Amino acid sequence: MLEKIQKMLTIRSSSVRVLLAEALGMYMLMVLGLSCAAQVVLGKGEFGHYLSINLGFGIGVTMGIHVAQGISGAHLNAAITLTHCILGNLPWRKLPAYLLGQFLGSFLAAATVFGLYYDALYDYTKGNFTVTGPTATASIFSTYPSPYMSLTGSFFTEFMATVILFLGILAIHDEKNNGALKGTQALLTGILVLGIGMGMGMNTGYAINPSRDLPPRIFTAIAGWGVDVFTAGHYWWWVPLVAPTLGSLVGGLTYKLFIDIHNQPVPECGNEKGQTDVESSTL
Amino acid sequence: MLEKIQKMLTIRSSSVRVLLAEALGMYMLMVLGLSCAAQVVLGKGEFGHYLSINLGFGIGVTMGIHVAQGISGAHLNAAITLTHCILGNLPWRKLPAYLLGQFLGSFLAAATVFGLYYDALYDYTKGNFTVTGPTATASIFSTYPSPYMSLTGSFFTEFMATVILFLGILAIHDEKNNGALKGTQALLTGILVLGIGMGMGMNTGYAINPSRDLPPRIFTAIAGWGVDVFTAGHYWWWVPLVAPTLGSLVGGLTYKLFIDIHNQPVPECGNEKGQTDVESSTL
Amino acid sequence: MLEKIQKMLTIRSSSVRVLLAEALGMYMLMVLGLSCAAQVVLGKGEFGHYLSINLGFGIGVTMGIHVAQGISGAHLNAAITLTHCILGNLPWRKLPAYLLGQFLGSFLAAATVFGLYYDALYDYTKGNFTVTGPTATASIFSTYPSPYMSLTGSFFTEFMATVILFLGILAIHDEKNNGALKGTQALLTGILVLGIGMGMGMNTGYAINPSRDLPPRIFTAIAGWGVDVFTAGHYWWWVPLVAPTLGSLVGGLTYKLFIDIHNQPVPECGNEKGQTDVESSTL
Amino acid sequence: MLEKIQKMLTIRSSSVRVLLAEALGMYMLMVLGLSCAAQVVLGKGEFGHYLSINLGFGIGVTMGIHVAQGISGAHLNAAITLTHCILGNLPWRKLPAYLLGQFLGSFLAAATVFGLYYDALYDYTKGNFTVTGPTATASIFSTYPSPYMSLTGSFFTEFMATVILFLGILAIHDEKNNGALKGTQALLTGILVLGIGMGMGMNTGYAINPSRDLPPRIFTAIAGWGVDVFTAGHYWWWVPLVAPTLGSLVGGLTYKLFIDIHNQPVPECGNEKGQTDVESSTL
Repeated sequence: MLEKIQKMLTIRSSSVRVLLAEALGMYMLMVLGLSCAAQVVLGKGEFGHYLSINLGFGIGVTMGIHVAQGISGAHLNAAITLTHCILGNLPWRKLPAYLLGQFLGSFLAAATVFGLYYDALYDYTKGNFTVTGPTATASIFSTYPSPYMSLTGSFFTEFMATVILFLGILAIHDEKNNGALKGTQALLTGILVLGIGMGMGMNTGYAINPSRDLPPRIFTAIAGWGVDVFTAGHYWWWVPLVAPTLGSLVGGLTYKLFIDIHNQPVPECGNEKGQTDVESSTL
Repeated sequence: MLEKIQKMLTIRSSSVRVLLAEALGMYMLMVLGLSCAAQVVLGKGEFGHYLSINLGFGIGVTMGIHVAQGISGAHLNAAITLTHCILGNLPWRKLPAYLLGQFLGSFLAAATVFGLYYDALYDYTKGNFTVTGPTATASIFSTYPSPYMSLTGSFFTEFMATVILFLGILAIHDEKNNGALKGTQALLTGILVLGIGMGMGMNTGYAINPSRDLPPRIFTAIAGWGVDVFTAGHYWWWVPLVAPTLGSLVGGLTYKLFIDIHNQPVPECGNEKGQTDVESSTL
Repeated sequence: MLEKIQKMLTIRSSSVRVLLAEALGMYMLMVLGLSCAAQVVLGKGEFGHYLSINLGFGIGVTMGIHVAQGISGAHLNAAITLTHCILGNLPWRKLPAYLLGQFLGSFLAAATVFGLYYDALYDYTKGNFTVTGPTATASIFSTYPSPYMSLTGSFFTEFMATVILFLGILAIHDEKNNGALKGTQALLTGILVLGIGMGMGMNTGYAINPSRDLPPRIFTAIAGWGVDVFTAGHYWWWVPLVAPTLGSLVGGLTYKLFIDIHNQPVPECGNEKGQTDVESSTL
Repeated sequence: MLEKIQKMLTIRSSSVRVLLAEALGMYMLMVLGLSCAAQVVLGKGEFGHYLSINLGFGIGVTMGIHVAQGISGAHLNAAITLTHCILGNLPWRKLPAYLLGQFLGSFLAAATVFGLYYDALYDYTKGNFTVTGPTATASIFSTYPSPYMSLTGSFFTEFMATVILFLGILAIHDEKNNGALKGTQALLTGILVLGIGMGMGMNTGYAINPSRDLPPRIFTAIAGWGVDVFTAGHYWWWVPLVAPTLGSLVGGLTYKLFIDIHNQPVPECGNEKGQTDVESSTL
């Protein structure tokens, strides 16, 4: 009987499977990342520092990739999915499943972390959820630029951080070059995100990923922080959607121009050539 | 003669071997984890911060798995053992050896850390071992909810943290999907626990494991902290037994529904199919 | 058509490919490292501590190696390139491509980090970019000795730190000895640099690499810090060029004398002998 | 000619090669570890915290193992060497080469770190090198018990920490059980030492190794700290020699009794049996 149920539940549609994998992978990424942010903000320095947020998102990325990569390639980032479509590595018809899965996973993760820290949020804010001020808590969920930042500077930060992100991801997965050992790539990608957070997180909160930023922002708009989450930072909300997408594209082209197109697999000793997987190394 | 002694001591019973392995693995996990907690609390911030506790339990998990996995699969967690029984991955008759081994290892580890920090405990508390107050030390050994927490919130925290734990463990070990490289899975599991501690540790101390929580609690009841260790936090003690067990079950089912049942091994290029090991990947 | 463009852009000259690879690898290294330094200095302790700088350069080294190693061996350090030339592992005619690539990547990275932190730099310094004083910021980009240091001590620190660096690199890559697993060597090299920063960074800022130090120094001279970047620390600027080069040589010879020349590959069970790669293990 | 010189310098004596390997490996370990300790003490909290010392020794252990393991098995610890002799894994006649190599490497590392931090030491102490007092610096080089410690507690701490050390080392290297992936064992051993430092470092400074403790102590006696380094802590100096040796023995026997002797290699699918290497897994 168990087998029958299992058969009934088994989904053959690759789009639905991609959607489920991206959703669960994104959920894993975001619960780990956002909860670390919550613990640092609400713990008032007793339960972690800024580094914990960087580590949390790094570990989240590693675990999210382990959850989803075998099914969907674990993009877990709308900017990367779009880049793959633009560069011809992924058919456009597959785009919706990726984006929807990422959106759902990210939104549910924000709701979960809200539930996890509901008591602490009330204790910290006395029920007054705000985007700015001494007990501001919106930055637990989505990113906001620091007060000293110009729009140009903020846009450039998100752009550059995503250039570095995608350059690193391509290098880690490039088997023709010196990729990380298969089975350790998820860990290395997490370490890369850790580095980006420690070096490029102060200005804008390193969204580097529309799917990491927009769904939790919508959640906070609904859950009590209100429309401020969209108006704050001079209507900052659209930057983490556009800048990372451009950054990811430029990062991909840079890697191709500097490294990849000159680096043809040597046929005579090519025991590792061939099975480059679509999502991450044929760019 | 040495060989004779060795032969005499060799145990063939797989139950006893499982018990010994789980005991030693759990001991390793708990000595490393609890001692880091002791060093942070008793060191007054000079010898580590909250992050050290997270790192300590992460490293403890990694080392405990290396000690036990070859023999028992290194559950090191009664919630995971129970989940495997419920899901039919482990025969129920094997349950007692797992639970007893985990209990013994955890209890002995608490006693060892008490011995290690006996001088420091006296110096810090003047001999007055308490669960609450300015020189409270019971939280070195077992978990207590933060003062601001409701029971619902606490239960949900322990439940969710264990959902994430087991989701991650299954993904790390899933060879059909994108598991971690064999021989690095123990490290990745430790990193996962590090992430859970940094993100979900503030509310309740992240027990996420009955075998991590109950035996040290019993030890402290005996060793001088008294019955308070059970009454504190509105009789909190039962939550780390029940919530992680539910969380582990839900985590397991979620992974199955979102990823595993749709992900049949491809027969034509399946050089790595087959030997899924019972404890961690056939769920 | 895309293929035609690709063909047109493909570079066959190995020197140009080396230059591009060293440039992009160095860029990766330096953007991650320098941005972490900027975030620590300009973030006033809120967005990272000294450890973040150490981690940032470690992760930068790991990622830079992944970017460049398949093409150029990922020296990413003029001292190491020179050592390989002196010891006969690299033909002298290849030297210019390495040095130029490293210089360009490092210079561009300094410019990028200047751009990333332009707003924060203005906010922190009110536009007054200085090498010394309460809001000194030049140390974000290149190294300066601490006030208590003598020239001898500073020179010795840079020398010794590079001895340790190159000893470690050779050990990590030595397949005849106990090298790190292929595919994890970049990670291990990053960890080595992390250790050097935590242990030998206080005195002089651990340049240990002319290519890490000189190009950003020239950039800061142009970008507003002026000629002070060369006169500061009693004309310190030449030490990070000379001392690491000597250190790298001595480190290489030490490894050869203590380990390598006595460690001949055993022919009868030598399944891993042979393909020692020129850049890192035939020294 | 170069080849001739190389031939002349090549040492065939396995004892001398072991001595050189243990010396260079120990030097690597100790320079990285001690320099981190120096940077934390002399940097007054600006250049690292206690965690840096733990990370430094962990990374030192990893790098030391990469340097020496292919030649000598990288004991880098007199307690472990003695344990191997007592348990019959290493012939007694090899003992002197190991101990002498470890001693020389450790002593030279102390001298090197003294040189590296000579300027900072003078700046910090005004030339008054002391074992106790507000500007005490002897603990940079060797271990001293905390003031609140009893001798029994101190002895037990060093004993237990070494039990955990050797238990972990055996598990990491046990190919019959669930050892770490070959080529990552050095890293895992470093992580183990990191955990021991974070959890068992506060009481006594976690010597857990006579070769780590005695040679730097002798160096400090000579270099200006005087005979106090031996009298301090009620003649503490002998404890880090005796307690770790006992701990290592007990750790080894515990692993054998709980895991190893019951865990016979399965002959029918034993593709990884056989080549257990003498130094670390046949215990």
